[in-house]
Amino acid sequence: MDGTLMSGTLSSAGMAGQRVVIIGGGFGGIAAARALARAPVQVTLIDRRNFHLFQPLLYQVATAGLSPADIGAPIRSILRDQGNVRVALAKVTGIDTGARLVETEEGPVGYDTLIIATGARHAYFGRDEWEALAPGIKTIDDATRLRAKLLFALERAEIVSDPKRRKALLTFVIVGGGPTGVELAGAVAELARHVADRDFRTITPKDIQVLLVEAGPRLLPQFRESMSAAAARALTRMGVEVRTGTAVTEITPDQVVVGGEVIATNNVIWAAGVRASAAGRWLGAEVDRAGRVLVGNDFSVPHHPGIFVIGDTAAYRQADGTMLPGIAPAAKQAGEFVGALVASRFGGRTPRPFEYRDFGQLATVGRNFAVADFGRIRLTGFPGWLLWSVAHVWFLVGFRSRFSVASQWLWSYLTWERGARLITGAEVAMARPPETNAP
Amino acid sequence: MDGTLMSGTLSSAGMAGQRVVIIGGGFGGIAAARALARAPVQVTLIDRRNFHLFQPLLYQVATAGLSPADIGAPIRSILRDQGNVRVALAKVTGIDTGARLVETEEGPVGYDTLIIATGARHAYFGRDEWEALAPGIKTIDDATRLRAKLLFALERAEIVSDPKRRKALLTFVIVGGGPTGVELAGAVAELARHVADRDFRTITPKDIQVLLVEAGPRLLPQFRESMSAAAARALTRMGVEVRTGTAVTEITPDQVVVGGEVIATNNVIWAAGVRASAAGRWLGAEVDRAGRVLVGNDFSVPHHPGIFVIGDTAAYRQADGTMLPGIAPAAKQAGEFVGALVASRFGGRTPRPFEYRDFGQLATVGRNFAVADFGRIRLTGFPGWLLWSVAHVWFLVGFRSRFSVASQWLWSYLTWERGARLITGAEVAMARPPETNAP
Repeated sequence: MDGTLMSGTLSSAGMAGQRVVIIGGGFGGIAAARALARAPVQVTLIDRRNFHLFQPLLYQVATAGLSPADIGAPIRSILRDQGNVRVALAKVTGIDTGARLVETEEGPVGYDTLIIATGARHAYFGRDEWEALAPGIKTIDDATRLRAKLLFALERAEIVSDPKRRKALLTFVIVGGGPTGVELAGAVAELARHVADRDFRTITPKDIQVLLVEAGPRLLPQFRESMSAAAARALTRMGVEVRTGTAVTEITPDQVVVGGEVIATNNVIWAAGVRASAAGRWLGAEVDRAGRVLVGNDFSVPHHPGIFVIGDTAAYRQADGTMLPGIAPAAKQAGEFVGALVASRFGGRTPRPFEYRDFGQLATVGRNFAVADFGRIRLTGFPGWLLWSVAHVWFLVGFRSRFSVASQWLWSYLTWERGARLITGAEVAMARPPETNAP
Repeated sequence: MDGTLMSGTLSSAGMAGQRVVIIGGGFGGIAAARALARAPVQVTLIDRRNFHLFQPLLYQVATAGLSPADIGAPIRSILRDQGNVRVALAKVTGIDTGARLVETEEGPVGYDTLIIATGARHAYFGRDEWEALAPGIKTIDDATRLRAKLLFALERAEIVSDPKRRKALLTFVIVGGGPTGVELAGAVAELARHVADRDFRTITPKDIQVLLVEAGPRLLPQFRESMSAAAARALTRMGVEVRTGTAVTEITPDQVVVGGEVIATNNVIWAAGVRASAAGRWLGAEVDRAGRVLVGNDFSVPHHPGIFVIGDTAAYRQADGTMLPGIAPAAKQAGEFVGALVASRFGGRTPRPFEYRDFGQLATVGRNFAVADFGRIRLTGFPGWLLWSVAHVWFLVGFRSRFSVASQWLWSYLTWERGARLITGAEVAMARPPETNAP
């Protein structure tokens, strides 16, 4: 630690106007930086990763449909042409609101205005010991680890002869019936059934069981009921057992207890809950049950002038009383709004009060079924999948990713090939199912 | 460990003819399996990875030009249509030649004929402590770790202000002037200079120093002298300092001693030597200095009837007295030969004595220079690069990879974009330059 992060560097670059620091290079942080492009401010974007991640497609990496580089783009490249931005790879450890310093492992960074967009991690409702047993996916590393775990289970099942062990290896339980859970269930069912059937000698589709468990009364609670039912029917057609109104009460290395029933499985995947990043703790600010910072109607933090929190880290109550949803378009719009608000202090146009434009909800179930709730339109079948694909590719940041993802999808769709089916990681053993049945 | 690997499974599949076990899914192992396609034998291919790796392009992964999935293909997919092959993901721990058993972490596998094609790792000439300081690239994980290390050095250099630390972060030393070292030096120079120049604010091309160090008198000793000189000139034009006849005598976390000169650097990359896998030890067979098993002119191991060793694990003396080179085409040809030889015992045509067909040597230096030594042809410039690309893509195993690599290369060439520039890995800290200058 030399404590000199940015100080020499940025001051020598000439510090015009205010120092705006953005923490987090997700949808919210990037949008805020872009909205400040013409403002006479010096923006520093800090992230502990060097890339922006298209999180809605993480489940495709976890199920071997896409490679990490397809859904990630270096933050530097995205902001390359914006002269008033510096990008710093650093892990934030705290915020000194008195001295107006963001503390990082590389040294402190001073700010006049601070925009926090640090997202969320999955949460286990107080059962933190489940994290190791039922991984969730929020980062690239989560996704590649889960991919290794799923593929390793198939490899192991191919060569073990004990029917009980084999059954546990070929049973996949996804916990949580929101969009991520639904998408994962569809993709796991496809991966396991179709690919395994082609490449493995001893595993047949009927050997594989995929369960989707949701504690609430229906899947996709954000959608209308008819949409939820359509998604459940589509999953059932794909061979996924959907269990709603059923809670997971216990997870061990080789079984899960679902609504009182014990199910032998080495593959539990968590898609049931998230918890906001540590921003609330850094600020000493008031947070909600999920750790999100309670913000005002301009995303400012009460009693912390000059600090804004956006995206999954913020609890924002809309004018109609409902909470702003924790999805990419909402984070993006909040980033645009806060960026414009800060810019307006330096001569930019004052933005109108924030109002979330709801473009609707989309969730995909396997290769050819998507539920799209645009208020009036519901799309299913290949057209629905195509709309979903186009919408996702459109929002991917870099052209390279758009091109790559589109060609991968087309290839995957036409051939059932899965391109990224590699078990990597220095410790393949990490992905191993536990040896609990060993003598 | 349930000790039942394959036994139940394979016996129930009906064991026609002999049990042939192949260890290793590289160029040699895959070729051997394919050559046995029509033989009435039961082939088991064991690898500790689930994918075949196109090793000649690993340096592209390490320098962020390609993604891991572009140069790897699942072994199961490659051999999907060959009914007499079983693929097992397992780590081999030893061979019991008396009982004719391959011992793995998943249990033993019996064989009648054994083909060992387990490749090589990089070697440090007895200085094993250098491995952590000067990583080499032989596996996907090696390559992604090196990629993270290189990218992290640039990120760190962007934000530190101490000129000495910055210089060490921006100095890259590649040890070893064979094809891998030459290709790495060219790719690192390109990555650091062109991409850094575009995406970083404080790093300019002149800040970056790339050194290629070779202890022998010239680069690419396998090529004719004029080719070696051409490669050295091309590297020099790209800004790489080439030092031949110069040995590395010491490596520490923040410096390297090259021909007596102390060079401050956090980035030493090893491409100087390899050592064969543990096969010699497993067999108790006679090995050469590099650990390669001395084999007869049909790749059989003396005193071990029914056991063959091929590829980088074997020391094979050709009829003209020279050793068979440790490159992909040689491993592939050896695999084809041994597979055919084993098949011939069951009615296949007896192959002619092994004779290596030398298709020449190819090495690329950056984006538009390749040296191709086909005996009479030498290609440089864009045509050389194009031939090199086509040759490599042609030999990539799966169509998906061919398609992906070709489109990536075209894209990269036209735009200077680097598609896979992500720093991943659960512990980014692993990639960090050491903190030796910290107070």
